[in-house]
Amino acid sequence: MAQPVQDRVVRLAELEIDPARLEEYRLLLREEIEASIRVEPGVLTLYAVSVKGHPDQIRLFEMYRDQAAYEAHLQTPHFRKYKTQTQNMVKSLRLVETDPVLLGAK
Amino acid sequence: MAQPVQDRVVRLAELEIDPARLEEYRLLLREEIEASIRVEPGVLTLYAVSVKGHPDQIRLFEMYRDQAAYEAHLQTPHFRKYKTQTQNMVKSLRLVETDPVLLGAK
Repeated sequence: MAQPVQDRVVRLAELEIDPARLEEYRLLLREEIEASIRVEPGVLTLYAVSVKGHPDQIRLFEMYRDQAAYEAHLQTPHFRKYKTQTQNMVKSLRLVETDPVLLGAK
Repeated sequence: MAQPVQDRVVRLAELEIDPARLEEYRLLLREEIEASIRVEPGVLTLYAVSVKGHPDQIRLFEMYRDQAAYEAHLQTPHFRKYKTQTQNMVKSLRLVETDPVLLGAK
């Protein structure tokens, strides 16, 4: 059923990755997502997809339990490693802050 | 833990809604999401958010179990009702087809 949404923090990210570094980038992204989901109770989803036909265009759908969980995530060693190690692979990054309307999930 | 991704269909939608019809639109969207999650086993998530500060800009993150589940969804009465009743409220609609990279969730 639909989750209560009042405290959820949902952020979208649109990234363009250097095509020459794409495999490295995807490896670091996967490592970061897996660690976040495993060790952070407040990280509810980190969905990563690429635009069909454009594997260098990555979209993330990030959902955190609340603002504190989001801020804690930014300070974790796995997130900081991801940010540092991917900074030269990311050609552009657009963050979209959002207000949840309805977060329907099984 | 991360879900297996090979068969998942993930679609993003970016909509701009007529501000004068926004409340009506949100009601129809909520009804459609709630029905889809409740009655369709193959509809895994329908996340609806609005861009912060721009409530008329809606973003959807839709995840279906597989292609068959996605096609079945398009034929349901609740989806068809949503499409018909909202068509004059939607000023623009951009659909983004994607390939999953990693769908990390609790």
